[in-house]
Amino acid sequence: MTENSIQERGAGISVTSSRNTRAMIDKAGPQFDLAYQSGVMGLSARPMKERFVSIDLGGSNKCVLDFVRCSYLGLDNHPEIVAGAIDAVTQYKSLHWSCARTRLNFALLTTLENELADLFQARVITYSSVLAANMSALPLIASGHLTGNKKPVMVFDRFAHATLAFHKPTLAAETAVITIDHNDVSMLEQICKQNPCVAYICDGVYSMGGTAPLEALLSLQQRYGLFLYIDDAHGVSLFGRQGEGFVRSQVPDSVGGRTIIAASLGKGFGASGGLLMLGSNEHEKLFRRFAIAHAFSASLNLAGVGAALASAKLHRTAELLRRQIFLGERIEQFDRLCKTDQSGLPLPIRFLKIGDETTTISAARTLIDRGYYTSAVFFPTVPQGEAGLRLCLSASHTKEGIEGLCHALDEVLRQDKEIRR
Amino acid sequence: MTENSIQERGAGISVTSSRNTRAMIDKAGPQFDLAYQSGVMGLSARPMKERFVSIDLGGSNKCVLDFVRCSYLGLDNHPEIVAGAIDAVTQYKSLHWSCARTRLNFALLTTLENELADLFQARVITYSSVLAANMSALPLIASGHLTGNKKPVMVFDRFAHATLAFHKPTLAAETAVITIDHNDVSMLEQICKQNPCVAYICDGVYSMGGTAPLEALLSLQQRYGLFLYIDDAHGVSLFGRQGEGFVRSQVPDSVGGRTIIAASLGKGFGASGGLLMLGSNEHEKLFRRFAIAHAFSASLNLAGVGAALASAKLHRTAELLRRQIFLGERIEQFDRLCKTDQSGLPLPIRFLKIGDETTTISAARTLIDRGYYTSAVFFPTVPQGEAGLRLCLSASHTKEGIEGLCHALDEVLRQDKEIRR
Repeated sequence: MTENSIQERGAGISVTSSRNTRAMIDKAGPQFDLAYQSGVMGLSARPMKERFVSIDLGGSNKCVLDFVRCSYLGLDNHPEIVAGAIDAVTQYKSLHWSCARTRLNFALLTTLENELADLFQARVITYSSVLAANMSALPLIASGHLTGNKKPVMVFDRFAHATLAFHKPTLAAETAVITIDHNDVSMLEQICKQNPCVAYICDGVYSMGGTAPLEALLSLQQRYGLFLYIDDAHGVSLFGRQGEGFVRSQVPDSVGGRTIIAASLGKGFGASGGLLMLGSNEHEKLFRRFAIAHAFSASLNLAGVGAALASAKLHRTAELLRRQIFLGERIEQFDRLCKTDQSGLPLPIRFLKIGDETTTISAARTLIDRGYYTSAVFFPTVPQGEAGLRLCLSASHTKEGIEGLCHALDEVLRQDKEIRR
Repeated sequence: MTENSIQERGAGISVTSSRNTRAMIDKAGPQFDLAYQSGVMGLSARPMKERFVSIDLGGSNKCVLDFVRCSYLGLDNHPEIVAGAIDAVTQYKSLHWSCARTRLNFALLTTLENELADLFQARVITYSSVLAANMSALPLIASGHLTGNKKPVMVFDRFAHATLAFHKPTLAAETAVITIDHNDVSMLEQICKQNPCVAYICDGVYSMGGTAPLEALLSLQQRYGLFLYIDDAHGVSLFGRQGEGFVRSQVPDSVGGRTIIAASLGKGFGASGGLLMLGSNEHEKLFRRFAIAHAFSASLNLAGVGAALASAKLHRTAELLRRQIFLGERIEQFDRLCKTDQSGLPLPIRFLKIGDETTTISAARTLIDRGYYTSAVFFPTVPQGEAGLRLCLSASHTKEGIEGLCHALDEVLRQDKEIRR
């Protein structure tokens, strides 16, 4: 059988994209083998105080400072959020109802969605994960029902998250799908000029660093009616007076009928699950009826609901700002000690490019030995030959922790250069 | 822009399938409007004792006996499962870690997966939902990496669950995809004869009633090496000495390298989340590296993990068999009182076909008024003009509850016939 490919059609621009899971696995296999053998991936652990975790080494344990988890405000072990999870389950004497949300919902989930709507000043629907939220939203955008019954040309940023890019062929069965270079606003404008209806799919804060050019996108929306679907999983809670996130805090008063923002209830928010912020009653109605995860999968469980309610409450207190400030200080400290392409950005993700995959995995291993867990990132997450370490900074890392990490990074990378000399 | 379609290619048989979310929404819209206006969909409620729930009517509440939830063994409010959820969160002082499973996992999740592996005698990987499990598995099957590097022709049963069928175009970008009629074993055999490598995608227990022809499928597997991916979300826990489920309890000793079974940790199992049962070490390794939900989404939260561990423990006690027997008795009782196409099958789902959508919705409304909540099912879940009521029976429904439901059904449907005369 030959490789099949989906021809993505755009008026004016034509891009061919094909999925090839087989080739991807063949290419990435040896690096994964090495990473697992080196003990830098797929670890089992128990949480310790602050950002420390105790890793299972099969018999023994090792305590390391974690820079892998995306709990940027350090809320994932906040006692009030943990108590919120337990309270909800205790009160309802149930964890989970196995039925579609189009049938039956925990009343507490309705309370949560109303609370989040008020917090983020948008209509909010929750999902069991951002993956489920993204899968639900994209076909509804493709249908044209959100854009006055005109099917949009769907334009993806080349770096849009894997849980968005996954669905391109499914969307191409409904409408035209184009992939453009990362943050290529001028190409996007060209497409807007040539097509009556365009939807742009991108991340707010990118998981490997950087952000969407939000101002430019909002300007295209104003001039051409561009529909925006922005996955702000990594931006929520970190920005805005009530933690509205990187995207929502920059979008005018109302989300409006031409923007949808996806966000995580894990990561910065510190609970579990995902959500969509919608701008119109019509959109909300459509999603509550036809979104695949709403109609054919179950809701967030009640522990997640309770945790999210507790976190929403925290988002209205001075503790949020305090944690946002702590995080900013740790980021600045890191940038003073270690230069990356993201230096100076107010975001908690830093990507330290090393290049070679083997060197990257070996560096991650040495860092674990010195007490620091970082993500060794390589193909297919980044292109081949562009491997590196991803570091997620958080408000509950201490000054000493960041200092120690940077010192260890410096030594490990200097060592590597000396070996390669 | 014209409708695009994906040409699904099969050697010998060619089937064209196209997605058309717009047309689906336009067709289904009026029925959804009526169902929501009638208050038979999207309800908010609190759990009460046994299978009763208290529905929010905006100001007041109404207590109804629920036949919507899929907790077939009545485990979703079992005190030990609820306690398991609370214990795990209490012990770890955390609900959720926001990171890919390829990075960091709660040690208790590793414990759960080992426990489930032993319970179901298969290699087990858990997911936050069955939706995430299905999305993860299908492209890996399409890649050919599970079938000796031969890309299989992927054959879908026409009634395969929506979270499977959704991905057909994405899979068609990798290999040939064919949809065949429900349980059409002879067509499947013909495809097996004409193609060196075939994978069949179907449900074990169908959500609207009936099962896969498992014996015939296993025979095709033996004769042609057919690869089977079976979603047994509705079958798990209900069958087998340790609740292995409809499919696993009929598959020989080892799952083997040519079968994958998906199952729910909600529904019969009574916790939350989903899982895959795999038959080979190589398959497990591949899934733990490349499955999209493993690499790019988060795990089941810790409350789900704790609940599932408690349920797994219950699955090893006499209580499982007792509940399986209770369920069987309730099913037999129902069949004596109310005839459906599923009468006599040892499955808890009954579909009472009414035909007309408006009549169905009105019947569901009258039933709520009489104290029974059932699912009014219509297009797109079933074809137009084939609407009806879905009833999920459970081990914790009482004799009186089933009797009351059947009596109410009888009256409501007789009334309807008299009106239509």
